[in-house]
Amino acid sequence: MTTGARRRMGVEERRDQLIAVALDLFSHRSPEDVSIDEIAEAAGISRPLVYHYFPGKQQLYEAALRRAAEELTARFVEPHEGPLGARLLRVMERFFDFVEVHGPGFSALMRGGPAVGSTRASAMIDGVRQAAYEQIVAHLGVPDPTPRLELVVRSWVSLAETTALLWLDRRSIPRTELERQLVHDFAALAAVSAAYDERMAQVVRHMLADEPADGMFADLVGRLMSLPAPVRCA
Amino acid sequence: MTTGARRRMGVEERRDQLIAVALDLFSHRSPEDVSIDEIAEAAGISRPLVYHYFPGKQQLYEAALRRAAEELTARFVEPHEGPLGARLLRVMERFFDFVEVHGPGFSALMRGGPAVGSTRASAMIDGVRQAAYEQIVAHLGVPDPTPRLELVVRSWVSLAETTALLWLDRRSIPRTELERQLVHDFAALAAVSAAYDERMAQVVRHMLADEPADGMFADLVGRLMSLPAPVRCA
Repeated sequence: MTTGARRRMGVEERRDQLIAVALDLFSHRSPEDVSIDEIAEAAGISRPLVYHYFPGKQQLYEAALRRAAEELTARFVEPHEGPLGARLLRVMERFFDFVEVHGPGFSALMRGGPAVGSTRASAMIDGVRQAAYEQIVAHLGVPDPTPRLELVVRSWVSLAETTALLWLDRRSIPRTELERQLVHDFAALAAVSAAYDERMAQVVRHMLADEPADGMFADLVGRLMSLPAPVRCA
Repeated sequence: MTTGARRRMGVEERRDQLIAVALDLFSHRSPEDVSIDEIAEAAGISRPLVYHYFPGKQQLYEAALRRAAEELTARFVEPHEGPLGARLLRVMERFFDFVEVHGPGFSALMRGGPAVGSTRASAMIDGVRQAAYEQIVAHLGVPDPTPRLELVVRSWVSLAETTALLWLDRRSIPRTELERQLVHDFAALAAVSAAYDERMAQVVRHMLADEPADGMFADLVGRLMSLPAPVRCA
């Protein structure tokens, strides 16, 4: 390991540094408002040298987005142990950690716009959504998700995104409450869906099977599942 | 009123026609895949004449988007009469009518992309979301929405968007079921939120006050609201 602070960096190392510097700047201001000059200055190199490592602003932004997407995706990984509600709550805590650290960058990215609204950026965001979807389906223990299950999970992912964006804008509700509320939202949406679809009801029963009496899901979903026929409208 | 079919159109009339032609083409294929040549041909005029009315493709697309946004916003308007659940269901039916008619155009727009992902397009989409939000808040009879209410309504709007996009992609669940499910989703999310916030609970009670015993909300929300203290985690 080299320890000299001023040594010459290799190409990959320099690219990594520029990405890290860009992400740090994007965590305080929207990518649209951050120039290559600022990134160069914060990295302690010249503007032309930045263009040596990245052909343009868009490429550096996309590399930063790819790094952030990988980091967020890694946060979705949760051991398949213990009650499902507690697992989902831990993932929500890590998701909000990410959202809090990346603030303006996350917000600009999810809302699109000139600096961040490219087709490749959209594809990377969809990749993160897909990873979230697959993680949840795996935790639910469903090898072949039904259309109804897919709908519940994917629409809940968008609900979590919107909740996080509103939290960044307003900060009017503590994030710890929103993390818990999102877990309960998932349970409520799954239970509503179960009223329409017997296979979805099986999934909800499986979700509940491992829940302790004081778990995140148990009481809420249990009561919803005991709703009588009239609410289970076809 | 002029009735001649081949008469010369005025500027506004021609612009209206081009917008209508573009929206019709976008209802079958993504805007990215529709050229100005095709729009000119479908309108029965030359390509240069299209550019006489719209300086570029982007301007015509944005004019078409503005028209579609106005049309969708108009569909949110619902008389303040009768049970809230039934009102919301009628709005959902009109929303899915719109989504079904505009199919690929709606899908491309909501997912962003080079042809439709401009800042102005994003602002128009946000305008439609804001109109949906304001309509719902007005129906709930809340003059000063709390942060929690704002969160529930805005995140439910994103849930409805995601549900509609998945329906367009898959068509695996009948839209009539999804329209009803979305109304129940709203009730479930409001009820979950009420467990965290006494003012939100008041809103839910108001929602329920006008509901008939067999209404969309009554049973589902009523049972959720009767959940005992342990679920109402702070």
